[in-house]
Amino acid sequence: MVSGKVGFVGLGIMGTPMARNLMRAGYDLLVYNRSARNAARLAEEGAGVVDNLRELAERSSLIITMLPGPPEVEEVTKNLLEGAIEGSLIIDMSTSSPVLARELAQSARERGVGMLDAPVSGGDVGAIEGTLSIMAGGAREDFDRASPLFEVMGGNVVHVGEAGAGQLTKAANQIVVAIVMEATSEALVLAERSGVEPQKLIEALSGGLAANKVMELKREKFLSHEFTPGGKVVYHLKDLGIALETAREYGVSLPVTALVKEMFVSLVAKGRGGWDHSAILTLVEELSGQEG
Amino acid sequence: MVSGKVGFVGLGIMGTPMARNLMRAGYDLLVYNRSARNAARLAEEGAGVVDNLRELAERSSLIITMLPGPPEVEEVTKNLLEGAIEGSLIIDMSTSSPVLARELAQSARERGVGMLDAPVSGGDVGAIEGTLSIMAGGAREDFDRASPLFEVMGGNVVHVGEAGAGQLTKAANQIVVAIVMEATSEALVLAERSGVEPQKLIEALSGGLAANKVMELKREKFLSHEFTPGGKVVYHLKDLGIALETAREYGVSLPVTALVKEMFVSLVAKGRGGWDHSAILTLVEELSGQEG
Repeated sequence: MVSGKVGFVGLGIMGTPMARNLMRAGYDLLVYNRSARNAARLAEEGAGVVDNLRELAERSSLIITMLPGPPEVEEVTKNLLEGAIEGSLIIDMSTSSPVLARELAQSARERGVGMLDAPVSGGDVGAIEGTLSIMAGGAREDFDRASPLFEVMGGNVVHVGEAGAGQLTKAANQIVVAIVMEATSEALVLAERSGVEPQKLIEALSGGLAANKVMELKREKFLSHEFTPGGKVVYHLKDLGIALETAREYGVSLPVTALVKEMFVSLVAKGRGGWDHSAILTLVEELSGQEG
Repeated sequence: MVSGKVGFVGLGIMGTPMARNLMRAGYDLLVYNRSARNAARLAEEGAGVVDNLRELAERSSLIITMLPGPPEVEEVTKNLLEGAIEGSLIIDMSTSSPVLARELAQSARERGVGMLDAPVSGGDVGAIEGTLSIMAGGAREDFDRASPLFEVMGGNVVHVGEAGAGQLTKAANQIVVAIVMEATSEALVLAERSGVEPQKLIEALSGGLAANKVMELKREKFLSHEFTPGGKVVYHLKDLGIALETAREYGVSLPVTALVKEMFVSLVAKGRGGWDHSAILTLVEELSGQEG
């Protein structure tokens, strides 16, 4: 158990259940959200609410941020650092840029504040059930300090390395998820068009080397073509952009990631940015002449 | 238990342990192999040996073939059909072409002989342990008749559809395996080059949506760069060729399969055709400037 108040910034589809799980585990939460409605809901459940980030930082020994992407992470963290108590710890659980994560950790360190980048995988279901996969980068002592909170929110918690390593791991995670979705989609379209029932295909492939979590968890979406998110195409496209920018900075060439990213661009162009990312199946179908 | 002799053709790295498991389960095996040495080894364990395919067919109520690819399957099946008893059943467990599988099933049917295409996934380890994933296409009554033998050789046995459906499913399986290997390789190279330890990456990714069987079973090869097969690059390249040819016949466009197939072509060009297919990692490393 961590002592003192836990600040929480970013009460969206992921942040709200994560904050709620912390409260239920007995943590004294102080929340801030741009949308007052989400904060008010948690206030009813016992959270303290503040209306500016500086005050949140001044009153919290540990602060979690769960934001849409790098611009929000940069702005919020800079505001938090203006009020942050020396010796406090900021944990950014957003999916953001590894390079930015390193820069912010350095700024925090200069003010005597610890910082972890600890993005998650597992979606809203994982957030609600407290079974998120958490990939944390930063100093070992900061990771140890945050561990009790991670245990509340996550199932598979791994300290992957120094500052930025969490975001790098998340970028790698999003590469694998996107490409596996495309792989499964190509297999499904070939099977269906040649007379093999998709559910039979999935059943057969699940027993061997082709087995993967995407095929298991997105099975119903692939079979029903009902692509309510889940994880949205636009967010995954943002993540692949981060992965490819980071790769270029390190001189790493990712040919299939680049191609699959362009397929996500096409999904957005076709007006499917708000669909679940497994909707890449529809693109493979259309490439093969099926009506959209 | 199937009554009568079981013929077995093709005693390679897969066929030998499959035949051995059938013998251990009490089946009366009759074997033929181009290389007399492999047949002799099984003869010592109790198998009958014949030196031509016609005789094998004349004496077997059920025949299993496990051959390198379509040309061998076509030649051997045609020879078997010259001697095959009316009412007997041929089960081709090779990885071959769906179109050929349909043609051969039709030829067999005209002679009153049943035929299944029932390729496998799971490699030599699955063959030895009798845990292969078996994807069978053909008539339901033929599948039911072969089921007791499948249960001996396999773990996950699925009747996926009519003649050719087994080969189609295997083609789809090989698409997914190849692309997942590439996905994992791109993630590993990005992580390693940016300072995240590969084993930490695998640990973190194994807990979420990116989890897949390739990363689990090929973990040691990815980490050690020791690419002893396992499944050889040349065989997987052959399988991707079958998948893409079949896709073209059905008017299906598979952009990522095509790109990954070309990466396997490159591996062969670099003299790595005999390496394990997970060696696609080395190509991603070299694309990113690492020494080969």
